[in-house]
Amino acid sequence: MEVQKGKQSLQFTEAPFIISSASIVGKKEGEGPLGECFDMVCEDDKFGEDTWEEAESTLQKEAVALTLGKAEQTSEDIRYLFAGDLLGQNIATSFGLQDYSVPLFGLYGACSTCGESLSLAAMTVAAGYADQVIAVTSSHFASAEKQFRFPLEYANQRPLSATWTVTGSAAFLVGKKKSKVQITGITTGKIMDYGIKDSMNMGAAMAPAAADCIAQHFDDFKRSPHDYDKIITGDLGTIGKEILIDLLLEKGYDISQVHTDCGIEIFDAATQNTGAGGSGCGCSAVTLSGHFLKHLEKGSLQRILFVPTGALLSTVSFNEGKTVPGIAHAVVLEHLKE
Amino acid sequence: MEVQKGKQSLQFTEAPFIISSASIVGKKEGEGPLGECFDMVCEDDKFGEDTWEEAESTLQKEAVALTLGKAEQTSEDIRYLFAGDLLGQNIATSFGLQDYSVPLFGLYGACSTCGESLSLAAMTVAAGYADQVIAVTSSHFASAEKQFRFPLEYANQRPLSATWTVTGSAAFLVGKKKSKVQITGITTGKIMDYGIKDSMNMGAAMAPAAADCIAQHFDDFKRSPHDYDKIITGDLGTIGKEILIDLLLEKGYDISQVHTDCGIEIFDAATQNTGAGGSGCGCSAVTLSGHFLKHLEKGSLQRILFVPTGALLSTVSFNEGKTVPGIAHAVVLEHLKE
Repeated sequence: MEVQKGKQSLQFTEAPFIISSASIVGKKEGEGPLGECFDMVCEDDKFGEDTWEEAESTLQKEAVALTLGKAEQTSEDIRYLFAGDLLGQNIATSFGLQDYSVPLFGLYGACSTCGESLSLAAMTVAAGYADQVIAVTSSHFASAEKQFRFPLEYANQRPLSATWTVTGSAAFLVGKKKSKVQITGITTGKIMDYGIKDSMNMGAAMAPAAADCIAQHFDDFKRSPHDYDKIITGDLGTIGKEILIDLLLEKGYDISQVHTDCGIEIFDAATQNTGAGGSGCGCSAVTLSGHFLKHLEKGSLQRILFVPTGALLSTVSFNEGKTVPGIAHAVVLEHLKE
Repeated sequence: MEVQKGKQSLQFTEAPFIISSASIVGKKEGEGPLGECFDMVCEDDKFGEDTWEEAESTLQKEAVALTLGKAEQTSEDIRYLFAGDLLGQNIATSFGLQDYSVPLFGLYGACSTCGESLSLAAMTVAAGYADQVIAVTSSHFASAEKQFRFPLEYANQRPLSATWTVTGSAAFLVGKKKSKVQITGITTGKIMDYGIKDSMNMGAAMAPAAADCIAQHFDDFKRSPHDYDKIITGDLGTIGKEILIDLLLEKGYDISQVHTDCGIEIFDAATQNTGAGGSGCGCSAVTLSGHFLKHLEKGSLQRILFVPTGALLSTVSFNEGKTVPGIAHAVVLEHLKE
């Protein structure tokens, strides 16, 4: 079997396993519909630290510690870390992971980084470059608001189309050792720019990238929506979801029966005042780790397409009147049939 | 031959080639000691654009275009881009590369990103995941000053220990097609933090990471400094170079006879007022592409260890009183013996 599939995909001949995974979230996420399924919910969103950025670093550090613990491994057993966050110069990652003393590939794909990190982790293990690696991403509501919008102290109002950055981090131990869940393929996305300039409507900015990546995935693998129990985007929210479904219908694919979005799953928008839904590198990561991965382990989901989505803007590009380009990376996760 | 070497290294059984490469720099770099060797020197540091960030995006776009042109390839022939820059949320990369419509892995390793991108590019090709990929990085003096220090219009003074961010970008077409230069191995670095807090002395902050990565490389490959014609760090500058040599002497390795630093090579500090030397993701990239790679092609260099170095700070981490952790990634480049 050839590993290169079509234009943008890989199908692994020896598919790597997700050996263990753990998630840690903030108070609001713990109060949401998935609250019960996370490994740790912290009442203090500063996680005992002095700054929001240090709090986010602590999230990554703890997610990795819990993931290692579940697999009874130490950082010495990990050959590479693939990690990223939303903050300028990836500081949550650099300060969160330095104590582990593991070779690091720093990544930036905005909220798609969870997909990017799982893709590179799987590529690395499948090639025999490592027996075990960890993919980890995070986001934090307060550090992200400070970075991208306004410090919380300003108490500014937000339109309904805005998403709510998830406070959370999840890590995935990817390796050769058999488990119940395999990463069997990936489709790596291109940047798509439909000219959206509204940083308060990122679902609309990211939906074209998700649609392009998913359609390319079907084309590369000669599959269709019914080959998946779920197709799960990262953080398109309610507005982006509608656009995604419409764009894929135009391309001849109806995913409406199998599609869901981590940003929609993680909060109850009606009672939690979270606008269009959750977002951030942490959103798709903790929802996969805490919720969907457990269904894959049990077999109540057999095969999913996990598609984290990212909006490639900064305050500098926004203030200079630039558009908000999007990107998405798809990962095929399957329950191991024995 | 086992691909995993020691703790942190890979030795490729089918080593990928650098098929073509191109560099583009600003006026000051064009006036420096290596001025003649770059493919394009632009008199206008805005490269015809309205903002410094757009100028940096144009650098990446042009570097890729020149690299493709030299190899008589189009973007359709490229399976992945591995790319990054210094700006928050990698905007130089996102806006510079989107028109190529090639699957993108966005990277962040500060000024070490050139090493990170070449490493992942080589891993991807050597594993058979792609026939041709491009690694590209950039930096721009004005966009970096605005991002990390002060806008140029403030005309603030700089201490002698400060480095001068190189305006430039270089791209490398890595693939299976035989050329004169191969990437035969890599050593992926860990974050090292010696507690340096001075963002105007980044050479000192990065030297421990370079020393750790180089010593680990020798250990993993069972080699010593005399196995290399040159050991070339990214942008340690004059102060970082001294620290690096001292730290490696403590570990039992004398690299003083073979060591040089791209930041020292690219400017004439005495006449160009560039402080401790050049820096930035563009510094090591254009110096490798324009200068050292040509010696490797001719055979006047047979084997080099290329070690770009990065300082993992942001203005947020700096303003919050955090240290400046460093990271470095080593790439072994060899002239093909026939």
